Amino acid sequence: MALNPDRLLPVEASLRPIARRLFAEVETLPIVSPHGHTEPSWYAENPRFPDPAALFVVPDHYIFRMLYSQGVPLEALGVPRADGGPVERDGRRIWRLFAEHYRLFRGTPSRLWFEHSLQTVFGIEERLSPQSADRIYDEIAAALETDALRPRALYDRFNIEAIATTDSALDDLAHHDAVRASGWHGRILPTYRPDAVVDPDRPGFAEALRRFLALAGEAETWSGYLDAHRTRRAYFKARGATATDHGHPSARTADLAPAECELLFSKVLAGTGSAAENELFRAQMLTEMARMSLEDGLVMQIHAGSSRNHNQALFERFGFDKGADIPQRTDYVGALRPMLNVVGNEPGLTIILFTLDETVYARELAPLAGHYPALRLGPPWWFFDSPDGMMRFREAVTETTGFYNTVGFNDDTRAFLSIPARHDVARRVDCAFLAKLVGEGRLEEDEAREVAVDLTYRLAKDAYRL
Amino acid sequence: MALNPDRLLPVEASLRPIARRLFAEVETLPIVSPHGHTEPSWYAENPRFPDPAALFVVPDHYIFRMLYSQGVPLEALGVPRADGGPVERDGRRIWRLFAEHYRLFRGTPSRLWFEHSLQTVFGIEERLSPQSADRIYDEIAAALETDALRPRALYDRFNIEAIATTDSALDDLAHHDAVRASGWHGRILPTYRPDAVVDPDRPGFAEALRRFLALAGEAETWSGYLDAHRTRRAYFKARGATATDHGHPSARTADLAPAECELLFSKVLAGTGSAAENELFRAQMLTEMARMSLEDGLVMQIHAGSSRNHNQALFERFGFDKGADIPQRTDYVGALRPMLNVVGNEPGLTIILFTLDETVYARELAPLAGHYPALRLGPPWWFFDSPDGMMRFREAVTETTGFYNTVGFNDDTRAFLSIPARHDVARRVDCAFLAKLVGEGRLEEDEAREVAVDLTYRLAKDAYRL
Amino acid sequence: MALNPDRLLPVEASLRPIARRLFAEVETLPIVSPHGHTEPSWYAENPRFPDPAALFVVPDHYIFRMLYSQGVPLEALGVPRADGGPVERDGRRIWRLFAEHYRLFRGTPSRLWFEHSLQTVFGIEERLSPQSADRIYDEIAAALETDALRPRALYDRFNIEAIATTDSALDDLAHHDAVRASGWHGRILPTYRPDAVVDPDRPGFAEALRRFLALAGEAETWSGYLDAHRTRRAYFKARGATATDHGHPSARTADLAPAECELLFSKVLAGTGSAAENELFRAQMLTEMARMSLEDGLVMQIHAGSSRNHNQALFERFGFDKGADIPQRTDYVGALRPMLNVVGNEPGLTIILFTLDETVYARELAPLAGHYPALRLGPPWWFFDSPDGMMRFREAVTETTGFYNTVGFNDDTRAFLSIPARHDVARRVDCAFLAKLVGEGRLEEDEAREVAVDLTYRLAKDAYRL
Repeated sequence: MALNPDRLLPVEASLRPIARRLFAEVETLPIVSPHGHTEPSWYAENPRFPDPAALFVVPDHYIFRMLYSQGVPLEALGVPRADGGPVERDGRRIWRLFAEHYRLFRGTPSRLWFEHSLQTVFGIEERLSPQSADRIYDEIAAALETDALRPRALYDRFNIEAIATTDSALDDLAHHDAVRASGWHGRILPTYRPDAVVDPDRPGFAEALRRFLALAGEAETWSGYLDAHRTRRAYFKARGATATDHGHPSARTADLAPAECELLFSKVLAGTGSAAENELFRAQMLTEMARMSLEDGLVMQIHAGSSRNHNQALFERFGFDKGADIPQRTDYVGALRPMLNVVGNEPGLTIILFTLDETVYARELAPLAGHYPALRLGPPWWFFDSPDGMMRFREAVTETTGFYNTVGFNDDTRAFLSIPARHDVARRVDCAFLAKLVGEGRLEEDEAREVAVDLTYRLAKDAYRL
Repeated sequence: MALNPDRLLPVEASLRPIARRLFAEVETLPIVSPHGHTEPSWYAENPRFPDPAALFVVPDHYIFRMLYSQGVPLEALGVPRADGGPVERDGRRIWRLFAEHYRLFRGTPSRLWFEHSLQTVFGIEERLSPQSADRIYDEIAAALETDALRPRALYDRFNIEAIATTDSALDDLAHHDAVRASGWHGRILPTYRPDAVVDPDRPGFAEALRRFLALAGEAETWSGYLDAHRTRRAYFKARGATATDHGHPSARTADLAPAECELLFSKVLAGTGSAAENELFRAQMLTEMARMSLEDGLVMQIHAGSSRNHNQALFERFGFDKGADIPQRTDYVGALRPMLNVVGNEPGLTIILFTLDETVYARELAPLAGHYPALRLGPPWWFFDSPDGMMRFREAVTETTGFYNTVGFNDDTRAFLSIPARHDVARRVDCAFLAKLVGEGRLEEDEAREVAVDLTYRLAKDAYRL
Repeated sequence: MALNPDRLLPVEASLRPIARRLFAEVETLPIVSPHGHTEPSWYAENPRFPDPAALFVVPDHYIFRMLYSQGVPLEALGVPRADGGPVERDGRRIWRLFAEHYRLFRGTPSRLWFEHSLQTVFGIEERLSPQSADRIYDEIAAALETDALRPRALYDRFNIEAIATTDSALDDLAHHDAVRASGWHGRILPTYRPDAVVDPDRPGFAEALRRFLALAGEAETWSGYLDAHRTRRAYFKARGATATDHGHPSARTADLAPAECELLFSKVLAGTGSAAENELFRAQMLTEMARMSLEDGLVMQIHAGSSRNHNQALFERFGFDKGADIPQRTDYVGALRPMLNVVGNEPGLTIILFTLDETVYARELAPLAGHYPALRLGPPWWFFDSPDGMMRFREAVTETTGFYNTVGFNDDTRAFLSIPARHDVARRVDCAFLAKLVGEGRLEEDEAREVAVDLTYRLAKDAYRL
């Protein structure tokens, strides 16, 4: 099961050597990780990771959703219930269940990431199966006892240059403060994610909103609310943040008159907004966040198009983020226009767009980013953070928007061990794409080499102002 | 014109041998055909097929729509008129017209299927042209006179293990009974297709509905109607059915209160339902059918997204299924949610989804089937039952939903001779896809071999409970 | 930087020789250019082209939108302001700015076209860069002084057999008359483009409409308006036009009763039409234009799906066609049905469809064109006039609609020098696609050769009745 050193590079005999040469230029470059979901506490407290199941299965929604789709109950995988009810706690039993169903991951990126971690972090080249399950479990468990597997050691081993976390606007960023106070050399940046106080459809929104205003010492008015964002953004920026992030069901934006905004704010605060008014509030807030980004220089990220908590029974039993968030058709052309007509022509502003709707890559996103100075395209997101997903992205957008309106790779993960695996996949796919352009006489190899380094390293640093 | 033995396998020198080895494992496996439209009478009565035109041209909407698109009148192709008016009846003249326009099929799957039949069934390796038309016509016509070309002989020659037909809920299944009574070894399964008594927009719906209730001895009430379905499903199941099939313009589902259902039923029975109410009735019935599948174990198939009878004049002249059914944009995420919230978490239920909207493969269907235990993805349907269509399907869904939330291949055809040709294409394309994964280091060859057999044989048998 | 003679042909060792043989058959065939935007005055007056920047940068919205997307102001690129305000006028400074940002075009078709022109027209093989900018500028500028670079000489050098321009319905076609009167052998055809008098949402519509009626000597009534179109179409046809062209935001068509049309006409004439009524007027006019095409034999082209002038500030500053026209999701199945139900079954009529929404290629356009005798598919348009865009088009439509419901290539350009470059790309990509079919055993090479010539030459001539 040893990893193929040419994996994901083109198999064609004239392209493979080109791709190898390009990949050699970028394989060992430092990892810049400007968007992700690792725990700040890992860097602050540098704990041991728990057992193999808790590392690879329980928290990984790519893994447990696939097992669930084939009839494995989430309880049997140790996924915690919302009501604290009983679930499997024996890591070894969870691991065996994973091993029994390992064939389900054939052809998926989860398989690639998992085997990359097994081999490069734990030195395990045996394929997972019911026969090998216990043996592999024991090897991983033993390694997890060592200091070499603690987060700070892995940060160095993975050659990470900087990594961003994603943090609620209500977070005090104590872990980030602790990291800085510790004198450790790692660069851990918070990201301002205000969804909990921007999306009136979230459970607990009104309460969160009041805490937010109190935290910033602002009145319960529209202008107080905007100032509270300014205060909290400054708080994040002072702790190293260079970006904000916004997860919205749609990409809709709005540019309403102040009086309309005030009325809308009073409704969402009172919890009396209709579905359409809640949507309009979110839409207006994207424009407000863009305006503030123009003021304070924070890069703005928009992740749009996920229908959250599609499975009602599962949501009630297990809560948020349990694999039942399903992409939906998403418009960008009409949706973004109000915001773009306010800030789209600002070359000093950077708004990075992410989508789960691949049909907009060529039709909408590439033409928009190929025109508006403020827009850039984020890498393929979530289900599309995969070899074919990445290749389709480059094939769909490059002819219209080029390479320089994209921003390199984001690993976007809470699975710490998968970070180098994901960057490895992205670097290989980009080199495969570039090798094809070179082989077909569309780009010369010296240029492809420069682009490979740009896609791996420079674009992410520049776009996120790191 | 001899068939290339490596057709549809990758041309790349390092992939071709892998693909050949995989294909060798599956090339001669039995055909499992769990969804199709062959005539039950063929198996009951084992008739001779009529002349070459009646076999290959007149009933094949892939063939005659292409000829029609280039100005050939359907009358000249012998397609029967709804009013019984005169059409060409001379098979040879129809055949010559086909031969004259044979270049139109370059690059289409119809061409692949036709030439596969010519060569493997009739031993003809000459290309069809105005020059060869009569010669080929005569050879086929002569062969059709022999017993080796009767349906039961072809069933054996094609190595069919089981084949499903598609039958109206009103059908008495007399041909299926006759097959069983005959003691013949072939396995011919009916499929419960209730569209005629579920879709209020069909001409003759109210009359069909009353016949349906009478057939089951039920009252003209909502609960009588549901019981009639239960009775008829049991009738089909007793005759070997393992599945139902539902052809709806959209994938919309609903979960209404009983009182609403009763009101809706009374309206559609009276023919006074609005377009929206008719749609809602169909939507509710998908959920009811899913509930019954949970009771009786019949696998549920949903074919959604065809805009039927787009060409009004043609429909009036020639009736249903004459090539003017056009795919349309189809939502699944919102549409299926009501039904999935009722039955989606049932691992004992199997709902197989088909689409004519490729844009939902990666965005909607793969994430849904990669989460809900009750969902599986059917193979590419209709216009996408083609080499590139199949490859795009695997490329779009595999990374998110894997291989095991798909169900193998369906030939879905009324063209008996094309059955082995279609399975041959599917097996080759799947092997080509797998060979690429192996060549790129994403899957090992021993696993690919197992997957190839699963996609060819096991998944269809398991999913359809054969 | 010498052009790779095998550029865009497949790199795979067994496909490349097939593709080379196919390309050899079509490489030097004459250019038929049935849809484009070159200036009629060029052919009438045969002027010198001005400096390199005015030739390659200032008028090319592909070029300046990419530079703008990375913060280069349009003023610095010499793009004229709507108010006549000051913009850069020094061609050399504009050229240097282009050279500094030349890396942005890596992987884009603009790069391919530009380098094809540099090498084949000017004999320049050096890559554009800040270092080479002045040298290349001087070489081009010197060449532009010679008669060999005048339009009529280039027409011959490019081996153009016929080229269509696109002309307002209000145009007197004086340049076309002048060309004919001059006795020059070039074949320059006008195309009837009535958008200015069909789209009530255009600024100045009512005034244009009155001029139009006056020009034709018709009354301000619905029937006068239709007759004015008949008169003007005949005027165009008498000057060589074989086609009309219609650029609409959507593909919507309608078939209203005459009384409704009259009412609608009176509203749009008075400027009191709502957005919905304006859309309905455009929809009705597509059907009227199709009816007239059936009368007078002009081929009808529909370019649908562009959201024009998306960037409000830019539109106010620079006017129309400045790169802020963004594709949007476009329905064809429902939209075209009213028109198709009037004229779709007419084999004597040709309606050519273009789209900016690739998702409709396989789902909607190929099935529609693979059924209706009146429909044909135009080549990939605008952002998709690119190697990957063309390949995706062939891959998406061929299996359903074949080659013969497509119409060959259109260069659709106002950049005269790019015409042979664009045809070269199209010929190469078509040969690459055909070589793959041959290599995979889906088509025989003698047929592929015939198809290559059809796609390059015959289909365009036939479809446009040249």
